[in-house]
Amino acid sequence: MSDQPTHVDDPRLTQAVEDVLGSYAERGGINHIEGFNLPSRQRVTSLLQDIEDVFFPGYYERDTLKRTNVRHVIGERLARVHSGLQQEVMKALLHRDRCGQSVDSASVGNLEEQTREIALRFLEAIPEMRSHLLEDASAAMEGDPAAQSLVEVVMTYPSIRAIAAYRAAHFLHEEGVPLIPRMMTEVLHGRTGIDIHPGAQISPGLFIDHGTGVVIGETTVIGNRVKIYQGVTLGALSVTRDESGAWADGQRHPTIEDGVTIYAGATILGGGTVIGENTIIGGNVWITRSVPSHTKVLIDPPYLVYENTLDGTIRRETRDTHS
Amino acid sequence: MSDQPTHVDDPRLTQAVEDVLGSYAERGGINHIEGFNLPSRQRVTSLLQDIEDVFFPGYYERDTLKRTNVRHVIGERLARVHSGLQQEVMKALLHRDRCGQSVDSASVGNLEEQTREIALRFLEAIPEMRSHLLEDASAAMEGDPAAQSLVEVVMTYPSIRAIAAYRAAHFLHEEGVPLIPRMMTEVLHGRTGIDIHPGAQISPGLFIDHGTGVVIGETTVIGNRVKIYQGVTLGALSVTRDESGAWADGQRHPTIEDGVTIYAGATILGGGTVIGENTIIGGNVWITRSVPSHTKVLIDPPYLVYENTLDGTIRRETRDTHS
Amino acid sequence: MSDQPTHVDDPRLTQAVEDVLGSYAERGGINHIEGFNLPSRQRVTSLLQDIEDVFFPGYYERDTLKRTNVRHVIGERLARVHSGLQQEVMKALLHRDRCGQSVDSASVGNLEEQTREIALRFLEAIPEMRSHLLEDASAAMEGDPAAQSLVEVVMTYPSIRAIAAYRAAHFLHEEGVPLIPRMMTEVLHGRTGIDIHPGAQISPGLFIDHGTGVVIGETTVIGNRVKIYQGVTLGALSVTRDESGAWADGQRHPTIEDGVTIYAGATILGGGTVIGENTIIGGNVWITRSVPSHTKVLIDPPYLVYENTLDGTIRRETRDTHS
Repeated sequence: MSDQPTHVDDPRLTQAVEDVLGSYAERGGINHIEGFNLPSRQRVTSLLQDIEDVFFPGYYERDTLKRTNVRHVIGERLARVHSGLQQEVMKALLHRDRCGQSVDSASVGNLEEQTREIALRFLEAIPEMRSHLLEDASAAMEGDPAAQSLVEVVMTYPSIRAIAAYRAAHFLHEEGVPLIPRMMTEVLHGRTGIDIHPGAQISPGLFIDHGTGVVIGETTVIGNRVKIYQGVTLGALSVTRDESGAWADGQRHPTIEDGVTIYAGATILGGGTVIGENTIIGGNVWITRSVPSHTKVLIDPPYLVYENTLDGTIRRETRDTHS
Repeated sequence: MSDQPTHVDDPRLTQAVEDVLGSYAERGGINHIEGFNLPSRQRVTSLLQDIEDVFFPGYYERDTLKRTNVRHVIGERLARVHSGLQQEVMKALLHRDRCGQSVDSASVGNLEEQTREIALRFLEAIPEMRSHLLEDASAAMEGDPAAQSLVEVVMTYPSIRAIAAYRAAHFLHEEGVPLIPRMMTEVLHGRTGIDIHPGAQISPGLFIDHGTGVVIGETTVIGNRVKIYQGVTLGALSVTRDESGAWADGQRHPTIEDGVTIYAGATILGGGTVIGENTIIGGNVWITRSVPSHTKVLIDPPYLVYENTLDGTIRRETRDTHS
Repeated sequence: MSDQPTHVDDPRLTQAVEDVLGSYAERGGINHIEGFNLPSRQRVTSLLQDIEDVFFPGYYERDTLKRTNVRHVIGERLARVHSGLQQEVMKALLHRDRCGQSVDSASVGNLEEQTREIALRFLEAIPEMRSHLLEDASAAMEGDPAAQSLVEVVMTYPSIRAIAAYRAAHFLHEEGVPLIPRMMTEVLHGRTGIDIHPGAQISPGLFIDHGTGVVIGETTVIGNRVKIYQGVTLGALSVTRDESGAWADGQRHPTIEDGVTIYAGATILGGGTVIGENTIIGGNVWITRSVPSHTKVLIDPPYLVYENTLDGTIRRETRDTHS
């Protein structure tokens, strides 16, 4: 079998190429040719890597970081974040404003000014983001009997990586940058199974143990020192559009106050749902209304049926045997 | 510590190498040396990347796609898909037919003919696959209040990437290609947490929100405009082998009709289970028998127990307070 | 917009760099500069790739492995594993012993000796690990009606990759190596959604179907031929610290005896919980106490409420209609 493509002499292949090109011309919606310079998934992923390295210097590098070279290395890295952010944010803003139309040079100048400002503000916010991430890492250390050291947490816990990307993405989301914040959190969703919308408001000290299947919706509010286990959903009740076709405004996802713990598989839904401080939500609990502070909520678990597979006898839990 | 391997002079290392080689000779099953030319995971992954770029031109590229270069770029890309498909499909067919035996040159010629035909038919099917993917993307746009634009859906939603890989893999599965379809959907399972078997039959307009933990089994049938949330299983009841040791034939997974919505964590099992059109299955519902059309199915959620952690008082939900 | 970073002439950018450097100096905990030579995530990932290739030779390669070159290729690969393991394990041991302090050269010599021994023992253990992995792959083949061949299992099933990484990581964990075992299992957690702590003790013949969301905790014990579905948690009950602030010692996670099957979404918690041999745990079951052998445990599923969305009529399951 030859490695050479055979399309020169194969009329079916030639026709197939024409038909694919025709389908680009004919159908809108999933095409994206000409004029648009969308942010690049590859560049956003590598920008995120640089941001991780700025947050946790020395943790993920190939080479040793020394006190003598740190100023130089970090300076270079921040300059790269600064320039990478400007490039991708500019594309995202252009995409939003043009919607396929050309933009005059005055507007382009304006957008460049905006972009520079956003990138600078991002750099200026790094010390505060790092301080929040330190609280996140400490919370993991305190909350997990299997955690051996802060180094282990930063190097191996998916929680800390997902939250770091969220904190960077949330900053850009608050600055009104389209597309890029969601691209960032989706990179980490893919890597960790933890899906945090960049619009969520999350105070320092969050720990997400194991994490696979966790969903934190766009308008969720989370207080300090909250602990969440795998498979927890902080979601919306089913939402509807109004007469004009727009979605109802306002908070669609719950508020979780300081010190709350939410065990694996629990589901908490609705914008009016507030979980009061230091409350504990048990595994698999399903909640759509508020719970006061200092409360432990457990399900009365479904009764179990035990069948002996050797002799076929069946025992059902009763009120007395049920835990 | 030297970078040089020390096996020249270390008898234990030499012995360890011999023992590993011995274990390859002795144990069948997980060895794969000589004669077999299995499809390469790396090449299938990069083939899938090219297919994604054909489905959504301009979305994931580093360089700008312009109307002036689009014919050239797309032509090249399709030729690469055509030739890459032929190479990997040929290996998969050879592997199936040889089972370790040599194959005569007439049979090899036959397989090459088959392979060329399959690769061509794949290219010819792209416009239809794109049209289905457009409906999938529109469904996401309509179904998610957090979705800002079709561009955002295509660029960031794991749903659309998992379904794109499924649609390509399903085509090859229907053509009888072994191994490669499953390799393709598993690449996306790893990236998104969405596990769709290539054998499933899925009509256009599917939207899978968040997606982590979703399982769609081999013989599942899904109608138009279906919406599925994270953690949903469309699975089999426990299956058994017949006297000859073969698995029972036929549909083992459910049928989901047009317009159905299935909320997070619901489980629908069994080949005879049909969910009628426009029916809504609530979160965490567990279903093993059919549900008629236009029905909303909710669980009577387990009663909750509230313990005040300050004074130890306990309140159980009763029939009156239970939601 | 220029590609050149503008920090030479932008005082805000210069200040931002200073502030980031200042935050490294000021805050401990998430910094890691100087002296420490942490294991590299990138190198551990590539080491794991070599180990996979040693476990399953010929499966994941670009080039064909032949009987004539196998001794050479495998020898090279084992030498690479041997030397890569020594390098990363040495860093992990140094990190543990130094905690930021310098270590005298006698201690370094000791650690090098330890490291060499650990790397050699790892190579010597490969035949036994392969033999266990063969049983794991056979179990997948026997347990999944959708599995076409052992080749398909090894090439495409996330289960086998996650367990392979676990078996390698567990060996290093038993040898007392810090950091690296968890780094290894977290690489596979990210790729598969299967989170197995390297401390768990797992006998041969484990099959994890689909796998997304599975959590197997640090002190779990699993017998032969156990089958686990997606979303299963083998976890701890909430644990507390004693007066000195240390976590309670001992087994915190359950024991699963030979031949047990655990269906999707089940949760089994607690160090004293023993699931007896050949027992079947149904989907979504929540268990915190032991279950005898040869038992099938199912939930009495919550009653369902059916609402007809056309006429609003509601039907509740009663004791008679409930499955």
